[in-house]
Amino acid sequence: MIYLDNAATTFPKPLSVTKEVRRCIETYCGNPGRSSHKLALEASEKIFSCRESISDFFSVGAPERVFFTLNTTYALNTVIKGLLHRGDHVLISDMEHNSVYRPVFRLARDRIVTFDIFRTHPGELTVTSAERLVGKKTKMLVCTHCPNLTSAVLPIREIGRLCRQKGVIFAVDAAQSAGHIPIDMEKDNIDVLCLPGHKGLYGIQGCGAVCLAEGIVPDSLVEGGNGINSFEGGMPDFPPERFESGTMPTPAIAALDEGVKEIKEIGIDNIREHERNLFYTYRERLESIRGIKIYDPEAPGAVLLFSVDGIPSERIAAHLAKHGICVRGGYHCSALGHRTLATPPGGAVRLSFGIFNKTEEADTFFSVLSDI
Amino acid sequence: MIYLDNAATTFPKPLSVTKEVRRCIETYCGNPGRSSHKLALEASEKIFSCRESISDFFSVGAPERVFFTLNTTYALNTVIKGLLHRGDHVLISDMEHNSVYRPVFRLARDRIVTFDIFRTHPGELTVTSAERLVGKKTKMLVCTHCPNLTSAVLPIREIGRLCRQKGVIFAVDAAQSAGHIPIDMEKDNIDVLCLPGHKGLYGIQGCGAVCLAEGIVPDSLVEGGNGINSFEGGMPDFPPERFESGTMPTPAIAALDEGVKEIKEIGIDNIREHERNLFYTYRERLESIRGIKIYDPEAPGAVLLFSVDGIPSERIAAHLAKHGICVRGGYHCSALGHRTLATPPGGAVRLSFGIFNKTEEADTFFSVLSDI
Repeated sequence: MIYLDNAATTFPKPLSVTKEVRRCIETYCGNPGRSSHKLALEASEKIFSCRESISDFFSVGAPERVFFTLNTTYALNTVIKGLLHRGDHVLISDMEHNSVYRPVFRLARDRIVTFDIFRTHPGELTVTSAERLVGKKTKMLVCTHCPNLTSAVLPIREIGRLCRQKGVIFAVDAAQSAGHIPIDMEKDNIDVLCLPGHKGLYGIQGCGAVCLAEGIVPDSLVEGGNGINSFEGGMPDFPPERFESGTMPTPAIAALDEGVKEIKEIGIDNIREHERNLFYTYRERLESIRGIKIYDPEAPGAVLLFSVDGIPSERIAAHLAKHGICVRGGYHCSALGHRTLATPPGGAVRLSFGIFNKTEEADTFFSVLSDI
Repeated sequence: MIYLDNAATTFPKPLSVTKEVRRCIETYCGNPGRSSHKLALEASEKIFSCRESISDFFSVGAPERVFFTLNTTYALNTVIKGLLHRGDHVLISDMEHNSVYRPVFRLARDRIVTFDIFRTHPGELTVTSAERLVGKKTKMLVCTHCPNLTSAVLPIREIGRLCRQKGVIFAVDAAQSAGHIPIDMEKDNIDVLCLPGHKGLYGIQGCGAVCLAEGIVPDSLVEGGNGINSFEGGMPDFPPERFESGTMPTPAIAALDEGVKEIKEIGIDNIREHERNLFYTYRERLESIRGIKIYDPEAPGAVLLFSVDGIPSERIAAHLAKHGICVRGGYHCSALGHRTLATPPGGAVRLSFGIFNKTEEADTFFSVLSDI
């Protein structure tokens, strides 16, 4: 099997991750924060260790400002709905995944906020396009770091600087960049960073995380299910407890902790170089085929999107799948991005790379692709 | 180690559960519903299998009406906030966990709903107490099946009948009853059933579920992160896709599927009998000690709550923990329940049983307890 769907979820997982999940389930998956016995304490410690790993890796500044959610969509919904209030204006980019677009659309539909979309293509105009749309009521700018369609990288440090100047909260969706590209919350001027556990950080499916800059405390989206201030009707007003309602997914958090350690060990620059090499290998060979269009071809990275004249992307994906090659066709939960890139009806084929891919796999890939 | 904290999370997990999590992570944890290759399809199939297991076990009537969340608190928040609208009145019981109380309190604080609390002690008055509080604006009654403090069982079938008569939506928090006591959504007149994956159903931490009766479709709490109706700004208007935003926790759902199968195999009546026997064993020996008060002693089941005159519950729990016995002291995320039972300041000690507990463990337990 050749797995080129790492943007959906990375596969396989490092051995250290698989082993830790097993160890967690078999030896320490008490309910964290609920009791004072060994199993509960060990679970709490592992969760704290993961907060520390993330805080350190992304320069959050304090592990307490890292909290866990089910996934990145829940993370984004929590901060978007928890930070925007009636009358606020919000900016998003034209490459957003629907995990940003839909919650913003929902708030706009309910006449709570208004929003505008800034342009990211061509890349040089991104900051200017955003700046033009900042108004007096603009409370937040939320955008992806890397879209899930191509390897384009938004200039988050510059966008963050703009936000600081204008007094706008800057929230970043790092679903496709965490573990692929360095992110430094402090230097990049980020107020809120939303991460998946199971993609570039190589944990398992079942947790995402939010990192908050100091002083940023969204309203809660979900209440109950934690024992802090047990006799109060409301939630605690501090992170992480304000946001961690109900039993946390200890096995997935344990996996994420190991995944982050693995990424640190390999080194993010090495990962980036590896993924770019894969991108160049596939791009070069795709470019030699007639009728193939590559989107954002000058942005090398973990994701490569292409379409083939006259052949629906789903048919290509199905053909590859039949031969044990895992890619994704169709639309990719990003209506905005497909419009921006002007992909054909039926979407496009996405190849996405990870640390376990090898350039040699391209031979098999192109041999199978050439059949169609 | 003697583990008597199964109401927080069951431990250990059945071998079939641990094995399936491992198999999932190592062989099929593609991103369900996102791609059409083998890994993604196998993940989708396993998730559907879990919907079927739950639908069958709780007589939901259709697997599509089962959807997954991070945990029971998220499940309850989703349905409470998704079904109540401005001006609605809601009823809750005086034994609610804060996963019910806090979201209702939040809606009331924001002046969206009003609520009343019906009495459950003495048990015979439960339905009458609820009936007296039903008014013209009462939209929903949400209550626990078994509280997390004692083994009291609320008469859900009768409460459900009352709700049907009055046209009130009936939502049940089965956090402590699922896998311990038979639940039949149809016969018990339940409109919404919220379940944990990692307690009496023996999955791992990281997923809960909501089962909806036909025609009950809450508003979404979270939007985005699914590919259905990719070009629409809103969420699909049908379950389960309306409610499953972002990547689902496949390993935890796979674990839950195996857990439910395990429970079916053992038989819920056998489990109930086993837990009651444990309750009687501990109750009898506790009753022979001076200065011990047992709460709801006439309701035998998986949970036994007691306090000791003059000794804080946390001290007892810590003493037991030092000798390898896991129980929970203090408050148990249920301010209402503690008030109803009139537990002393500092809370009470909770013993909670599971399928792996043995009556012989009581000898060690009482030998350690007698030291204090």
